[in-house]
Amino acid sequence: MDNYIRIFDTTLRDGEQSPGATMTSAEKLEVARTLARLGVDIIEAGFPAASPDDLEAVRRIALEVGNPSDGSRPPVICGLARASRGDIEKAWEGVNLAAHPRIHTFLATSEIHMKYKLKMTPQQVLERTREMVAYARSFCADVEFSPEDAGRSEPEFLYQVLAEAIQAGATTLNIPDTVGYTMPAEFGALISGIIQNVPGIDSCIVSVHCHNDLGLATANALAGIQAGARQAEVTINGIGERAGNTALEEVVMALYTRQPVYHCTTGIDTTQIAHASKLVSNYTGMSVQPNKAIVGANAFAHEAGIHQDGMLKNQQTYEIMLPEMVGVKQTRLVMGKHSGRHALKQRMADLGYMLDEAELDKLFQRFKALADRKKGITDSDLEALVSDELYQPKEFFTLDGLQVACGTIGMPTATVRLRGPDQKLYVQAALGSGPVDAVYKAIDAIVQSPNNLLEFVVHAVTEGIDAIGEVTVRIEGEDGKRTMSAQSGIEQPRSFGGYGADTDIIVASAKAYLAALNKMLVATGRAEATPLASVEMSTR
Amino acid sequence: MDNYIRIFDTTLRDGEQSPGATMTSAEKLEVARTLARLGVDIIEAGFPAASPDDLEAVRRIALEVGNPSDGSRPPVICGLARASRGDIEKAWEGVNLAAHPRIHTFLATSEIHMKYKLKMTPQQVLERTREMVAYARSFCADVEFSPEDAGRSEPEFLYQVLAEAIQAGATTLNIPDTVGYTMPAEFGALISGIIQNVPGIDSCIVSVHCHNDLGLATANALAGIQAGARQAEVTINGIGERAGNTALEEVVMALYTRQPVYHCTTGIDTTQIAHASKLVSNYTGMSVQPNKAIVGANAFAHEAGIHQDGMLKNQQTYEIMLPEMVGVKQTRLVMGKHSGRHALKQRMADLGYMLDEAELDKLFQRFKALADRKKGITDSDLEALVSDELYQPKEFFTLDGLQVACGTIGMPTATVRLRGPDQKLYVQAALGSGPVDAVYKAIDAIVQSPNNLLEFVVHAVTEGIDAIGEVTVRIEGEDGKRTMSAQSGIEQPRSFGGYGADTDIIVASAKAYLAALNKMLVATGRAEATPLASVEMSTR
Repeated sequence: MDNYIRIFDTTLRDGEQSPGATMTSAEKLEVARTLARLGVDIIEAGFPAASPDDLEAVRRIALEVGNPSDGSRPPVICGLARASRGDIEKAWEGVNLAAHPRIHTFLATSEIHMKYKLKMTPQQVLERTREMVAYARSFCADVEFSPEDAGRSEPEFLYQVLAEAIQAGATTLNIPDTVGYTMPAEFGALISGIIQNVPGIDSCIVSVHCHNDLGLATANALAGIQAGARQAEVTINGIGERAGNTALEEVVMALYTRQPVYHCTTGIDTTQIAHASKLVSNYTGMSVQPNKAIVGANAFAHEAGIHQDGMLKNQQTYEIMLPEMVGVKQTRLVMGKHSGRHALKQRMADLGYMLDEAELDKLFQRFKALADRKKGITDSDLEALVSDELYQPKEFFTLDGLQVACGTIGMPTATVRLRGPDQKLYVQAALGSGPVDAVYKAIDAIVQSPNNLLEFVVHAVTEGIDAIGEVTVRIEGEDGKRTMSAQSGIEQPRSFGGYGADTDIIVASAKAYLAALNKMLVATGRAEATPLASVEMSTR
Repeated sequence: MDNYIRIFDTTLRDGEQSPGATMTSAEKLEVARTLARLGVDIIEAGFPAASPDDLEAVRRIALEVGNPSDGSRPPVICGLARASRGDIEKAWEGVNLAAHPRIHTFLATSEIHMKYKLKMTPQQVLERTREMVAYARSFCADVEFSPEDAGRSEPEFLYQVLAEAIQAGATTLNIPDTVGYTMPAEFGALISGIIQNVPGIDSCIVSVHCHNDLGLATANALAGIQAGARQAEVTINGIGERAGNTALEEVVMALYTRQPVYHCTTGIDTTQIAHASKLVSNYTGMSVQPNKAIVGANAFAHEAGIHQDGMLKNQQTYEIMLPEMVGVKQTRLVMGKHSGRHALKQRMADLGYMLDEAELDKLFQRFKALADRKKGITDSDLEALVSDELYQPKEFFTLDGLQVACGTIGMPTATVRLRGPDQKLYVQAALGSGPVDAVYKAIDAIVQSPNNLLEFVVHAVTEGIDAIGEVTVRIEGEDGKRTMSAQSGIEQPRSFGGYGADTDIIVASAKAYLAALNKMLVATGRAEATPLASVEMSTR
């Protein structure tokens, strides 16, 4: 057995399935690029059968990230499929343009899932596994199979199903603890049992996929690796349904920091971790708590850059990793009023953003406006501007003007001017319970797309009171548009996240809300024929 | 060996040590009351030697929470002390009024800590342990000893130190993985080794104290329990220095959900978990990420209250716990415009808040004002109002009036009127990079206490755009006031958190900033003689 742990990132599939983490195609592509730079071995790019949009996003990733133009090693691009012909065909349609495509299909094997969800007998599950793995294999040489809810499956039956999958051509067998129920010793024993008892397992890679419902996703993944698994399914920041998945950064840094325990390596460039974490947090609107391991704001006892060589030994009294190792940089004022376009381009390239000329133009304009208002501009400020300016959903309504008055008198009032999809300007004024409420009510009066605000968060990008504020919102349409979780098959109301950044948090709030509304309009197909009930350029 | 796991909560000591988590005495007392209701066995109330304020906070908790008037079983109240006479005396001064006091003293036993931090030989460490445990025991029958950095200590030496502590009278031996370095199997083996090799260990309780630097704090604590530890040191939401401590809710719910694996029980009333989590998050300003196990906003697949009996079996396909089990309630509109004072009092009592008449008066006033602006008022709204109104630091400056104009024109302007410690009114106007910057600049012009804003977060308390916004800020004084971490001895700049809630997030931002400034003024002793450079009731 080799000692290389394949990192299978499912931020774009299992991660994106978490409530409100919906990303636009442009955001997904940028996340995939970031994952490739991070050195991820396999990118699960989505669940192509979910919708034409999901299929298209996977295709773009397969084409662009799956075939790097710079001659670097391309990651495997993987698409998820339930064990059905239709799903498998869609998955293949999504990934086939990648240099290294993979189809990942799954079927539940626990008694409770077979009985209540699948309504299939164990014998039927065995047969379906054989057929569908073979069908996937007829398209693609790289096929992964997951026995869903393996953590609660009868071991003997599980071995039979896995042996069937291997015979039918599966090359990776992924063992999910779907409900986050197992304890590390149990999960390690499950993996050992599989390796010892499944005929033909030597020719396959065994993979682990753990959930964090009891806070044990990382411990379980590591227990599986110690028992012989050689692929770990993970997400950036541990996002995912419910309490999320194993966090990429935790498993990678545990293997790295405790190399003498595991004797395993990964292909991850750990110095890219902080950037990937920030990007995913921005695009999904899933915040990272300050005490999150590795990527939380407080995770390191000392700031980056303060480690003189002579102090190193002493620092280790309270620190087992250096912040630099995971790419946490010193917050420096890197640019200012007098920095030019070339300097900005260079800095963005250093940060890992490949911008074309048009994108750079837009960004430079925002940069100059910011430099007029804020003393020094940091890398974090630049990243907020990129997110706000370049990776927004296709825009139907854009903010053209905003004016707000509020305070302790208790009559917060907002006037909003939007440019509509017809390029005309619309204006409305509204009174609210606060300035954000007033702004949102004015926008609602123009856009007329009833929704419920589920979440609203603002935080400052950098230190200092003149910092940029980032706003993330999450809304749910009132028309009851629903989405289906790939694995649970559960339909949930679909929610949409939006992001905005500005030194004025009320302006950022307006942008974030518009971004979420625009995403919702695309998804519900309302974008083409938006009835604009609002008065054109006049207040009512 | 019994199977009862003692829950030792150190939210008020190790948790409060995390950057910015500083709480006021009133907040600490309320957290201690909540921990007692939660059923915690031991409350580590603070590090009394740190400052007279810390000592006073511990004394109040020992007196009030350590001697319940309703005849319920009082929790043990514990104070931390370094292994020195002065610290131990202060700890005793702090806890001696409790019905069940405990002194917790510690000394490092790893080579790296002895050499670089303590600058002591192993022989000196042995002697100091014996002396100081005996000294603590001379005051108090309940003495806990921790060999700091046990996870990296030489086992044979560790056994010697622990045997010495037992002989000197220690009744609980706590084994900390101070740097969050060990893997679960290693940590379990460490505990087993101690139980098998330390003479006299049978008469003591072995305790575990784990850190989350690699995301393994919960797994390590559980491994220690499986190896025979009978006390777990934890914090609410897993807060603490760096990546934090073992989360109370994770360890308790893992023991509960997987009872057949561990065969252990705790005294925790799990239905109080959600309330305790929210309270600690509010008071410390440490946010909880949506994918946090047990207490994150997304932790449960289904909302509370939707589980009909007949559906239960089916629900378990994707859910191993019911939200109700940890006290997650359905968000209901519980009160409105027409609810009276009595109804409010009753509801607050149901939520676990014991308010006196003056407190209820204040709250009722706020409640009525909110009911005028917001359609329905939920439990979460009420909790935000309590935090904003009743548990604020001693106030020197209070917000008397605020007026803000902002928008895309780019000239955000704020006028602020504060009531000073002299009861006079002061007013200032300022221009900022955004409305919050403008407000903070106007406040700075009055208060004149230079500081750096480290963190600024707003989030909506409930769904809906007319929701209350909660703002938490963290500031650091520019005068370089520093604080010392009990265990590391590292001096760090002291930072102060503030909290504000209002339907107008700009008003809430002003209140949160004033709360943090007031805390800072108390801590730096500037409160008595605040020079007010600002013009009284006139703009400049």
